Amino acid sequence: MKRSIKREETEGRLLEVGLSLFIQQGYHGTGLKEVVDQAQMPKGSFYAYFDSKEAFGGSVVNHFAQQGLARLAVSLEQAPDPLLGLRAFFQANRDKMESRGFAGGCLLGNFSNELGAQAHEITPHLLQGLGNLSLHFAEALEKAQELGLVRQDLDASTLGDLLLNGWEGALMRAKTQVSPEPLDQFLTSFFDHLLKP
Amino acid sequence: MKRSIKREETEGRLLEVGLSLFIQQGYHGTGLKEVVDQAQMPKGSFYAYFDSKEAFGGSVVNHFAQQGLARLAVSLEQAPDPLLGLRAFFQANRDKMESRGFAGGCLLGNFSNELGAQAHEITPHLLQGLGNLSLHFAEALEKAQELGLVRQDLDASTLGDLLLNGWEGALMRAKTQVSPEPLDQFLTSFFDHLLKP
Repeated sequence: MKRSIKREETEGRLLEVGLSLFIQQGYHGTGLKEVVDQAQMPKGSFYAYFDSKEAFGGSVVNHFAQQGLARLAVSLEQAPDPLLGLRAFFQANRDKMESRGFAGGCLLGNFSNELGAQAHEITPHLLQGLGNLSLHFAEALEKAQELGLVRQDLDASTLGDLLLNGWEGALMRAKTQVSPEPLDQFLTSFFDHLLKP
Repeated sequence: MKRSIKREETEGRLLEVGLSLFIQQGYHGTGLKEVVDQAQMPKGSFYAYFDSKEAFGGSVVNHFAQQGLARLAVSLEQAPDPLLGLRAFFQANRDKMESRGFAGGCLLGNFSNELGAQAHEITPHLLQGLGNLSLHFAEALEKAQELGLVRQDLDASTLGDLLLNGWEGALMRAKTQVSPEPLDQFLTSFFDHLLKP
C-alpha cells in the first residue's frame, strides 16, 4: 500500500516535470535525461513507469487535459451563469500566460502543431483532449443558449470549436508578439460581440 | 547581367526548397544539408546567398508571406465583391491543404508555434508577415463593411485578426484530425454567420 502511494507520487512528479518541459521546449526539444534529472531519479527507473518517450508524451497530454477540464469545472461552478464561467476560465488562462511572459501556452495546441497526425502514441490523446475540451465548452454554451444569453443560429458544438480554435490562434499570436493583446482582443470580440444573440 | 539572373534563379530555388521542407518538417527538423542537396548545389555555396540558417529562415518567411499576399490580391481582383474575394482565397488554401493530405499548413503559424519570440532573425519577419496579412484582410473587410455586407460593431482590423487567428486554429485542428472538417466549419461559420451585419 505504502509502496503504491510512493509509485503514484513519483509518476505524478514525472508528469509535472514533463508538462513543464514539453510546454516550454516542445516534444523534440525535450530529452528524457532532462526529465529524469529534474525529477531527481535515475534514467533507468523511468522505464518502470513509461514504456517510451512517446507513451510518456501521451500521458502528459492526458494529465494536461485533465487539469484543464478540472479547472473549467471549478470556473463553471463558481460563476453565476455558464457564459461568465467560461469567460472566467479563459481569463485565468490569459493571466497565466501573462505571468509566464507569454511563453508556453497550451500543450494540446503546441503538440498538435509540432506532431500533428504523425505521433501514433500521442495524436489519439491530442484528439481526445481537444475533443473533450470542445465538448465541455459546448455544454456550457448550450446552457447559455437555453438561458437566451447566446445566439442560436449556430449550434453549441460549432460554437465550442470556434471558441477553442480561435483561442489557439490567439495564443500563437500572443507568443510571437509577447503581448496579451491578441488574447484580450479575442475574448472581448467573442464574448461581447460574436456570441451575442 | 547574365550572372545576376543566374544568382536570382539559384536564390529562388533555395527559397522554394526551404519553404517546402520547413513547412513539412519545421525549422529544427530541417537541416541545411537537406536544403542544398534538394537544391542541387554544394553546401559551401549556400553562404554566398545567406549568412546563416536563421537568416535563410527569415527570407523563406518573407517569400511565403509575399506569395500569400500576391494570391490574396488575385482572389480579390477576380471576385465580384471583397467578401467573396476573401472567401475564395481561404477556399483555395483549404483545397491546397486537402491536396497535401492536411500536412504542412501555414509557415507563419508553424514557425510562430515552434519559435515564438525566440528567433531573433525570424520573429520580426513572422510579426511582419502576420501583420501584413491581417492588414490586407482588414482592408477587404472594411470595403465590405462600406458595402453593408459585414457587421459594423467590430472594427475591420479586429475582424481581420479574428479571421487570421481563427484560421490558424482551424489549421491546427485539421492537421491533427487529417480532415477538412475544421476548415469548412470555420469558413461557413465565419462568413455565413459571424460576419453578417
